[in-house]
Amino acid sequence: MEEKRLQELQRAAEQEAMRMREANPAEYFERNLHQLGYSDPERALIQTLKEMIDNSLDATEAGGVLPEILVSIEETDKVITLSSSMGKDRKAKVFRVAVEDNGIGIMPDRIAPSFGKILYGSKLFSLRQSRGQQGIGISAAILYSQLTSLEPAEILSRVAGSSRACRVVLKIDVEKNEPVVISNEELDWDKPHGLRVTISIPARYSDRLDRYFKELAIGNPHMSLVVKKTLEGSTSELRIERTTDQVPPQPKEMKPHLYSVDPGIMQRMAEVDNCCRTLVSFLSKHFTMVSPQTARRILNLAKLPPNLRPEHIKADRVLEAAKLVKLMRPRLDVLSPIGEENITRALRELFPDSEFVASVSRPPWTYKGIPFQVEVGVAIGGQAVSEYAGPRRMSVIRLANRVPLPYDSSDCVIHRTVEEIDWPNYGLSTDDRGQPRVAVVFVGSIVASKVPYTSPGKFSVAASEEIRDELKLAFQELGRKMRVYFSKKMKEESEAKRFEFFKSYYDLLAEEVAHICGEPLDVTPVVSKLFG
Amino acid sequence: MEEKRLQELQRAAEQEAMRMREANPAEYFERNLHQLGYSDPERALIQTLKEMIDNSLDATEAGGVLPEILVSIEETDKVITLSSSMGKDRKAKVFRVAVEDNGIGIMPDRIAPSFGKILYGSKLFSLRQSRGQQGIGISAAILYSQLTSLEPAEILSRVAGSSRACRVVLKIDVEKNEPVVISNEELDWDKPHGLRVTISIPARYSDRLDRYFKELAIGNPHMSLVVKKTLEGSTSELRIERTTDQVPPQPKEMKPHLYSVDPGIMQRMAEVDNCCRTLVSFLSKHFTMVSPQTARRILNLAKLPPNLRPEHIKADRVLEAAKLVKLMRPRLDVLSPIGEENITRALRELFPDSEFVASVSRPPWTYKGIPFQVEVGVAIGGQAVSEYAGPRRMSVIRLANRVPLPYDSSDCVIHRTVEEIDWPNYGLSTDDRGQPRVAVVFVGSIVASKVPYTSPGKFSVAASEEIRDELKLAFQELGRKMRVYFSKKMKEESEAKRFEFFKSYYDLLAEEVAHICGEPLDVTPVVSKLFG
Repeated sequence: MEEKRLQELQRAAEQEAMRMREANPAEYFERNLHQLGYSDPERALIQTLKEMIDNSLDATEAGGVLPEILVSIEETDKVITLSSSMGKDRKAKVFRVAVEDNGIGIMPDRIAPSFGKILYGSKLFSLRQSRGQQGIGISAAILYSQLTSLEPAEILSRVAGSSRACRVVLKIDVEKNEPVVISNEELDWDKPHGLRVTISIPARYSDRLDRYFKELAIGNPHMSLVVKKTLEGSTSELRIERTTDQVPPQPKEMKPHLYSVDPGIMQRMAEVDNCCRTLVSFLSKHFTMVSPQTARRILNLAKLPPNLRPEHIKADRVLEAAKLVKLMRPRLDVLSPIGEENITRALRELFPDSEFVASVSRPPWTYKGIPFQVEVGVAIGGQAVSEYAGPRRMSVIRLANRVPLPYDSSDCVIHRTVEEIDWPNYGLSTDDRGQPRVAVVFVGSIVASKVPYTSPGKFSVAASEEIRDELKLAFQELGRKMRVYFSKKMKEESEAKRFEFFKSYYDLLAEEVAHICGEPLDVTPVVSKLFG
Repeated sequence: MEEKRLQELQRAAEQEAMRMREANPAEYFERNLHQLGYSDPERALIQTLKEMIDNSLDATEAGGVLPEILVSIEETDKVITLSSSMGKDRKAKVFRVAVEDNGIGIMPDRIAPSFGKILYGSKLFSLRQSRGQQGIGISAAILYSQLTSLEPAEILSRVAGSSRACRVVLKIDVEKNEPVVISNEELDWDKPHGLRVTISIPARYSDRLDRYFKELAIGNPHMSLVVKKTLEGSTSELRIERTTDQVPPQPKEMKPHLYSVDPGIMQRMAEVDNCCRTLVSFLSKHFTMVSPQTARRILNLAKLPPNLRPEHIKADRVLEAAKLVKLMRPRLDVLSPIGEENITRALRELFPDSEFVASVSRPPWTYKGIPFQVEVGVAIGGQAVSEYAGPRRMSVIRLANRVPLPYDSSDCVIHRTVEEIDWPNYGLSTDDRGQPRVAVVFVGSIVASKVPYTSPGKFSVAASEEIRDELKLAFQELGRKMRVYFSKKMKEESEAKRFEFFKSYYDLLAEEVAHICGEPLDVTPVVSKLFG
């Protein structure tokens, strides 16, 4: 019996072993597309457009070009049943979505992997502020498209200097995580350089999408955006004009800092390094703020010979020694923030009848050795703010590396910080349900060489202590501006009240004065002299 | 000039192309470990233990064994600086963490990839309720360990029937996403079958960890758990005894259902299929609730010949045709829920002095064709509940596939549903800040053949419409039980008040009666007769 039980257990282990296999990231995300924002047709549309436009803005920035982005959203007649649950069908129409930009384009041989491979790109290992970051976004949109509409994606690209454009139609071979190129041809395109991506997905249009476009303008005042929508047969257009002709300077790439690199990462960097012959050159070449002299001092403290080959490093000892040496903090001028003025201008544009608009830019700082910078803004009162803020009379627009984060806000450090601030303390009085008496929209923006997103879908920013502290300081500073406004408003209101009060008595006063003087008196000139 | 600008743009595109490269999932998650819960030392400890124990419970379940789990948490003297930000160091002690189980063990040749490869496992492509699911968890803990402490992981495994155990020490080669086996040896182990995993990580102990262990007992009443902690040199032990000797039946694997499979997935299944010669056999073999007759009817409606080879399928046409055929819903007996009684018993164990405990199990249902089942519970009042619920006097314990979800609750459908319910309507009265007047702890549990987590870290359950509806019904049913309790309590309280009121007058009454009768009278026996 005991023997038989053991045999059963052995068989269970053998069966388990047979079931084991490796998956590639395309297989993983195909089965978990909801983790990337493709959970329902409404959200999928916003997510797809966000991924495409993030790339377009990065591609224009890389060339120092003023972005001209054309978006086309076209509802087709095709209907897809997304799922049936106990007789309840969830259906959605297929939308043809295209985004065209005037960026630097993509070299012909890189088009297929850029779109047809999950975790492929130029940004995953770089420490440089950019909208795209992970090499997942646009390929995930293509995965969603081929899973549901079965349609391939079409990419049209022209690099400056080429006589013709390149048009690639492709799908993703999920089992290999490789592109399947269906066609690849050269053709004429009147654009000198740029990219157009077209994808067909089951989608649903919602007002949130228009909101997203408008919020995009806050972080990108130099962008011109035209959105053509064809919904239920009728076409409409949304135009967002740029409010500045200044191309923001391209953010700079930075090297890691010894105060923040993980020992495991450093160990591996050293082991695979093939450009440096000694530890001194390894440290001074691959890390920021380390001169050869500083490198020698660190190695001396770590009791490692300076001429040791990099692969023999003891990363933990080197890093502990580095802590004893006063290194300069990383350079903070690698970022490209939005700017206080731009935020204020964008808020006035978005909420033209608001009573008060203000913004605050904090100086750059670092979290785990990575430069970041926080900016916040606020718009108070008026019809437009009221509509935006909704029934709770408060709303937070969140931006990361200059693009809005349209979903999943409650776990985001920006959202949480706004909720932690004691706003009544800054004059924003609330009712007994804790809601502000006047509608208010906040903006919270983070730019960073690497934004710590809470998930691969990049919906929310993780609560790093340093980022939270900076956000808090920024919102408090904004609060002080709000307090000045509210107390001025209160003073004005109370003066107006006093005047009204006095005015209601001045006829009586006139009578009394007339009585004393023995003749009728006109007090109007006296009153207007007193109160202007 | 124009020519020069074009050249610049061309160079930018060329440089971008040179930066492009592919990343594997190990490289991705190494740079984004905070997305998997390894963001700070406190959380990393809970996350690591959760991943290890999830696997242990799955491994005992696979063998139908009553789980005996030994956890050892040992603080060492080694201190690691996690990061420095402008002179502020974040340090943590290295903990040696080990989890040992009496499960089926792992076959020797599968140990290295199971632990040394991200996205490797037996569960990613299976539709079967299990705690582990994605092939990321434990390898991510090892990534975190080797990044920070530089220590390898140690795995000791014995499969039933083998004379000796196998001990593997390994790291992960992140650039290849492959295990690096440092040593691999056979040795004696007095356990007939089981697994022990040991990892060294920078960590910080917190009470939340003890909470996690206690919550674990709710979903696993058949588990015995011993936790040995060595903190600051002193050792303590936490023991959780099983409250039932019944091993829950192992959940069953299920095939996909035609009402919920994505056309893209079906298309690919057919294209790579190498076991079926015709579409009829493909459909009836690989999908649940499709007989050969039904398959023929579907293919007839889709205008495809039944003998067509699977690779020539038109998945969208087949799926649209399937919608016209009344298919039975998937079998729902594939799940292994916790059970109402077990939840109630666990809550009484956890909160021994609570005033009221209740639970509700809903019948199984499906979301997107995947079976799931919702169970909820509540404990009200008493010291233990009050401590657990904290200053807000309300807390939600969330479980997915029978294990607690310790972090990131606000975006979870379980948490959100509890917040949507109008609890005062069920007798749970609240104060003017909306907080309940008596402390309350809710439990919300989901078991599913595949739980739709919102992120690879498996912190929260996504808000699928069907899951939300079922949770709402469950909590409302629980609410009705609460209402019965509260109204009974109120009645008792008002009767006690009446009695007190009467009692305060009965001496006076006695006097009056004595006065009327003309002699002293003892009313006590009358009163006790009246009120028992």
